[in-house]
Amino acid sequence: MDKKIKQSLIDIVGEENYTDSLIDMVSYSYDASEHRHRPSCGVWVKSAEQVSEILKLANREHIPVIPRGAGTGLCGMAVPVSGGIILDLSHMNKILKISIEDRLAIVQPGVIYAELDKALAPHGFFFPPDPASEKVCTLGGNVATNAGGIRGAKYGTTRDYVLGLKVVLPDGRVMRTGSNTMKSVSGYDLTKLFVGSEGTLVVITEITFKINPKPTATTTALATFDKLEDAGRAVSQITYSGILPRALEILGRHTILAINQNTDLNLPEVDAMLLAETDGYTKEETDYQMKKIIEVFKKNNPKEIKEAKSEEEAAELWLARKSSYAVLARIKTHFVLEDVTIPMARIADMLKGIEAIMERHNIQIATFGHAGDGNLHPQILYDGYDPEQVKRKEAASAELFQLAVELGGTLSGEHGIGLSKAPFMTLEHDPVAMDVMRAIKRLFDPNNILNPGKMALEA
Amino acid sequence: MDKKIKQSLIDIVGEENYTDSLIDMVSYSYDASEHRHRPSCGVWVKSAEQVSEILKLANREHIPVIPRGAGTGLCGMAVPVSGGIILDLSHMNKILKISIEDRLAIVQPGVIYAELDKALAPHGFFFPPDPASEKVCTLGGNVATNAGGIRGAKYGTTRDYVLGLKVVLPDGRVMRTGSNTMKSVSGYDLTKLFVGSEGTLVVITEITFKINPKPTATTTALATFDKLEDAGRAVSQITYSGILPRALEILGRHTILAINQNTDLNLPEVDAMLLAETDGYTKEETDYQMKKIIEVFKKNNPKEIKEAKSEEEAAELWLARKSSYAVLARIKTHFVLEDVTIPMARIADMLKGIEAIMERHNIQIATFGHAGDGNLHPQILYDGYDPEQVKRKEAASAELFQLAVELGGTLSGEHGIGLSKAPFMTLEHDPVAMDVMRAIKRLFDPNNILNPGKMALEA
Repeated sequence: MDKKIKQSLIDIVGEENYTDSLIDMVSYSYDASEHRHRPSCGVWVKSAEQVSEILKLANREHIPVIPRGAGTGLCGMAVPVSGGIILDLSHMNKILKISIEDRLAIVQPGVIYAELDKALAPHGFFFPPDPASEKVCTLGGNVATNAGGIRGAKYGTTRDYVLGLKVVLPDGRVMRTGSNTMKSVSGYDLTKLFVGSEGTLVVITEITFKINPKPTATTTALATFDKLEDAGRAVSQITYSGILPRALEILGRHTILAINQNTDLNLPEVDAMLLAETDGYTKEETDYQMKKIIEVFKKNNPKEIKEAKSEEEAAELWLARKSSYAVLARIKTHFVLEDVTIPMARIADMLKGIEAIMERHNIQIATFGHAGDGNLHPQILYDGYDPEQVKRKEAASAELFQLAVELGGTLSGEHGIGLSKAPFMTLEHDPVAMDVMRAIKRLFDPNNILNPGKMALEA
Repeated sequence: MDKKIKQSLIDIVGEENYTDSLIDMVSYSYDASEHRHRPSCGVWVKSAEQVSEILKLANREHIPVIPRGAGTGLCGMAVPVSGGIILDLSHMNKILKISIEDRLAIVQPGVIYAELDKALAPHGFFFPPDPASEKVCTLGGNVATNAGGIRGAKYGTTRDYVLGLKVVLPDGRVMRTGSNTMKSVSGYDLTKLFVGSEGTLVVITEITFKINPKPTATTTALATFDKLEDAGRAVSQITYSGILPRALEILGRHTILAINQNTDLNLPEVDAMLLAETDGYTKEETDYQMKKIIEVFKKNNPKEIKEAKSEEEAAELWLARKSSYAVLARIKTHFVLEDVTIPMARIADMLKGIEAIMERHNIQIATFGHAGDGNLHPQILYDGYDPEQVKRKEAASAELFQLAVELGGTLSGEHGIGLSKAPFMTLEHDPVAMDVMRAIKRLFDPNNILNPGKMALEA
């Protein structure tokens, strides 16, 4: 980093909040994806004013600025591919306000998801999107990537809960969007434009979330199916049945096999396992919904159906699903967790397509995911030190995206585009839509300083 | 309309779908607001291709184009203040697809809200936002204004259900946004940018909606309160109580008095009436939630509490609320229905402020609205033929907006900005946000042909 610029940054954030030490630069070089690139320096910021000063400087000097929360992103959105300044927001970690009577929470972007959940719990409230990385990930990152989670089928994603933002534009100007009200239609919805924009348009320095009262009853059950088609049909019929499970998860055969090879869970080795959970305030309500689901299971040739009789039994049913990611991650030296999402009725087609891709490229893919909203996570396992396997992994990934789009789906349900899926944006979006996205990027950030290289915005 | 341009329009849509007759021009000169201005001509379009051809022509010739559905907007968004071409989308009224298993419906913009609801009913599904004009309003208009309704407290607004759009840009290019999946984070959320943009950025020619299974049980109750503060506190405490009523409506004293003077309903003449409805799949669930609400009512000095024992009784309880708008609309020659929205805990403050504004300007304001999401509808009644009253009405409106913003609220919860609230945009939005909205407008529509004059985008 140029000496004069380094001094300017130190003048803004203070010596103790500036770093260009090798260990920090290595730490900032990665996130939860396979991408790596070192920045020139990092700064811990404390306020929108500091962010504004830094962006003014970076904009004048054309230096990339990469906003970063906890770095749990799976697609490289926090990786500084062109170097530059890591804008570390993790110290802006205050919950500024919880107003139950107004049904909202106002937070700084560095607050960890679980901290907000903990603060809401005594009031009987919760923040419904529930990313798997909840104990680590920051709410700013959740907003920047429109994070989802297991409860998405019923409760949607982060986007549905962001009421307003305070943001800093690349030229340093600060503005507020939205409002602290449950609904508003007053000018363009800039709030929602920034949700999921992966730090490429603005830096988020404050978030107003809508929060929900937490349902107090749940019912949990699972079913296994020897045939994929039966499980796929069951998912469609559950939607038809007129209820919305709060979770409807799926584990594919290769995930089940991998879990059995690496744990003592002893799952039945079937094509697919479906795990359903209903919620409400009364046992009658959750049981009524579960009855509908069990009826559907029964009609579709299940090998086995298990209903939890207690919270402990429910936790047991969740064990296989909750361990999937970690178990699979340990099998090979490397893995990539994909995130394709399709119309729900195409789940069986997608899973069959994945089998074909596995065979065609001789690579291991284990799939699990959120059947209730069509969001599948094929986890590709490979040896990253073997260039041949890396090549096969890349070919398989490309075909996964191709297939999802062919089935009427999208590249990403909840992880975002970042670097990993940037080359595939044109598969999903028509040239006009790409033009418009790029024009919006240029409008906000003419010098392309904010998180450059992401989302195919530069081609 | 210039003869050559008229001929070009006829060439695009056919003679029978072009009009410049006086009676049509008068019909197109208004909507449900107090604004009036005649266009030069109108065209009924059938396809995105026709819309594209018309926009290309208009863009070349710099002619305003005003997209129009049913003209039920309350803020003048469909009024052609600068003349030009009315682009009438009401003939694009096909429901293109209902896929229950994928939980979505694809419609053309001219489909009437109630038609979609009717088509979904046999499947046990519904489209949750429920604008009061449901039997007349078009879904394209619902999307363009982000329409809300009585179920907003629990189910949100139109925005929460739009998954994807097909739109035509002002230069005639056609593009798709979003996807037919329950969730997606793939590039900028252009879909949500267009929801609520009031026809100023693009013309919507196809909409993909998320739909919901319809809860089969409801419980309804109302309470009256002699003191406004008690009703306000009850609203806050209902939120605290940990449940989400699907409707929580409020009628203020002047609405109650006006209903009594103009109907045989004989309501108790109190400061406020609250009407609550809970929903679910089982009686146990809706009763459990209503019990919480009744407990709150009881703690806040109610004059009377009525619980419906049957569907007929529930309909009776709804009668006063459902008749409010129409009863009030008949009292004076003119009225304007405002739409201010505030944090829920400020409802009593807002209602008291409205009383003060009434007295200060010696004008009648009757308020009702959606307490459950802080959205109040003060209906100002006046004689529009008396310039003195018109002046007082305008002063009162301005103070309403001022007060809402002071209380942390927004100009509009569900009706939009249009012409009526354009002068007040800078009250709510900071100069940077106004700059950004205007820059986005110029980016999409550099010749300012799409619905010019609305939303304060030109200053």
